[in-house]
Amino acid sequence: MARAYNFSPGPAMLPESVLLEARATMLEYGDAGASIVEISHRGAEFIDIAARAEADLRELLAIPADYAVLFLPGGATTQQALLPLNFAAPGQRADYVLTGHWGATATRQAAPYVDLNVAASSEADGYRSIPPVDQWKLSKDAAYVHVTANETIHGVEFRPSKPGGHAFPDTGDVPLFADFSSSIASEPVDIPRFGAIYAGAQKNLGPVGIGVVIVRRDLLARAGQPRADIFDYRLQLAADSMLNTPPTWNWYVAGLTFRWMLEQGGVEAFARRSDDKAGLLYAAIDGSGGFYRNEVDRAVRSRMNVPFFLHDPALDEAFLAQAREAGLIGLKGHRVTGGMRASIYNPMPLEGVQALVDLMQDFQRRHG
Amino acid sequence: MARAYNFSPGPAMLPESVLLEARATMLEYGDAGASIVEISHRGAEFIDIAARAEADLRELLAIPADYAVLFLPGGATTQQALLPLNFAAPGQRADYVLTGHWGATATRQAAPYVDLNVAASSEADGYRSIPPVDQWKLSKDAAYVHVTANETIHGVEFRPSKPGGHAFPDTGDVPLFADFSSSIASEPVDIPRFGAIYAGAQKNLGPVGIGVVIVRRDLLARAGQPRADIFDYRLQLAADSMLNTPPTWNWYVAGLTFRWMLEQGGVEAFARRSDDKAGLLYAAIDGSGGFYRNEVDRAVRSRMNVPFFLHDPALDEAFLAQAREAGLIGLKGHRVTGGMRASIYNPMPLEGVQALVDLMQDFQRRHG
Repeated sequence: MARAYNFSPGPAMLPESVLLEARATMLEYGDAGASIVEISHRGAEFIDIAARAEADLRELLAIPADYAVLFLPGGATTQQALLPLNFAAPGQRADYVLTGHWGATATRQAAPYVDLNVAASSEADGYRSIPPVDQWKLSKDAAYVHVTANETIHGVEFRPSKPGGHAFPDTGDVPLFADFSSSIASEPVDIPRFGAIYAGAQKNLGPVGIGVVIVRRDLLARAGQPRADIFDYRLQLAADSMLNTPPTWNWYVAGLTFRWMLEQGGVEAFARRSDDKAGLLYAAIDGSGGFYRNEVDRAVRSRMNVPFFLHDPALDEAFLAQAREAGLIGLKGHRVTGGMRASIYNPMPLEGVQALVDLMQDFQRRHG
Repeated sequence: MARAYNFSPGPAMLPESVLLEARATMLEYGDAGASIVEISHRGAEFIDIAARAEADLRELLAIPADYAVLFLPGGATTQQALLPLNFAAPGQRADYVLTGHWGATATRQAAPYVDLNVAASSEADGYRSIPPVDQWKLSKDAAYVHVTANETIHGVEFRPSKPGGHAFPDTGDVPLFADFSSSIASEPVDIPRFGAIYAGAQKNLGPVGIGVVIVRRDLLARAGQPRADIFDYRLQLAADSMLNTPPTWNWYVAGLTFRWMLEQGGVEAFARRSDDKAGLLYAAIDGSGGFYRNEVDRAVRSRMNVPFFLHDPALDEAFLAQAREAGLIGLKGHRVTGGMRASIYNPMPLEGVQALVDLMQDFQRRHG
């Protein structure tokens, strides 16, 4: 088949122009005599790529100077282990708010290192909501509070900018840490509200194989707990995220994606597009008379990941087959939830979502 | 410039046929409708790629069935931290043998977790040798003994197959762990001698951004020490190295490189080629009448990384410029040592080494 509309949750669709540039440089990058994937991270070409990637990301996300940016391998889960190692004393209290699968994953990474307090959880309602902040049982002496800005599997998102949406809490002197893996760069974020935000790149920020940590510099003075050099954010920062050989090609393609996002109008443009795309899709679901349904509290529905169910699961396979036939892939829901899920990150055009809505309506006509 | 002979120590030269295939699939992989870098690691296409990569690596390295294979992000340094976490009790004795920069790096990753014993070190002679095994001060109760099979910076290599070369020690019931980052797949290795071997792929095994751990399965029964799920080899094995989103594209290109090595005749063929390439280069150095010199004990000279010095460091820049002019790149020595270094991994053809030798002789005629 030709290139499809790819609704994969991550690794996910990349802009075609980024892939074309990656392809054009696959044997030779500029005057280097070799591909980016073959040359030293200490050489002039890659040093320039890394510097431009950081500058572009800082511009894209309006990252203040008192925040450091790290580019690290291993994805978000690795950062979920490194955050307590770097910012909590051994066994210190840390507060976690669970609004889906990935918040729970974060607790499994932190549990060996902190006195873990689940301050709030929507597990009891199947992660279809975000508990009101006034019900959160936050600890005064916590090393940090951890939230998941957008839950990729359950489709639940903090929406500080949405009237009636769920804002990020004010945690006072306790820094707020947030996993932004699946919604970073999809709308403006007030970074000074956070002690640290982090993201695997493979959803909304670029290719698989690299992640980003944005951390308030003063927090790096915390002793944390005994850890290998390679797990130490301070040492990584001092080494420009090159304490060991970084995933250079992935970093390069991430940088290409940052530039593409800036050229497209930056996060303000993607905020509008995301509202349009998500609005179109939720309207189709809600207007289907129950043929399709999304079960998430409307105030916190994700703009990035739209899980939905057919009224009869026996139709799932036929739906996926017809979708593939129509050039729409990656729609199968996560094994945890079943059903369908459309991930509509920045590279997904409105036309792709329209094609999905058209398919849904056509499928309903045939099977309704 | 056109594609150069790339002597970069890692990230390093890849076979052109591998890069061509990576380029051909950059927008669409087979019938997937998307690039490998865009599709789910849980989908049929990638599951197949991962399975073939493991099967090919098992064939290439003759990995016995009682050894597990993990594909992990983060490179060798990350594994240097994960080995003690997985295989040593908290504060248990662990023996390290230092024959260069990377052995020392390994100790910095392990020091927070074990009672670290430097059983032997050649630091006093500038890492130009390997201490005789009968001088190693091994501990009876060590969790493991750690060695570096080949030191990428200092150019020192264990040579079990070489008459007069330095064999790997018999450590009895204490498992031997070895960093094989820069010499894996360059000659047959008797894996049952080791408890675990590991390597970042970006030197001799494939692209940057992924590493391999080959570990005797019975060792995975060890409790190790408290650690995040993501640091747990057992959980990674149970999840087929996909406990979180793996660096799929890098894994794919590593698999392409494994297949290329098998097609080229496997490790036996590369052992012969490596002997030829290294033999040619060392002969040129040793035959230069002191214009060039390599300072490593001849019995343990690396076949993979050949550091050398010009008799007058003031000529270094001119040498590098003439090399680049001749289409030879990546020859600048590591900042730790200065001088030059030619890394001649499997993808480097004999013609490339011959071109380097020609250049060295020409340069000597001009400047000798």
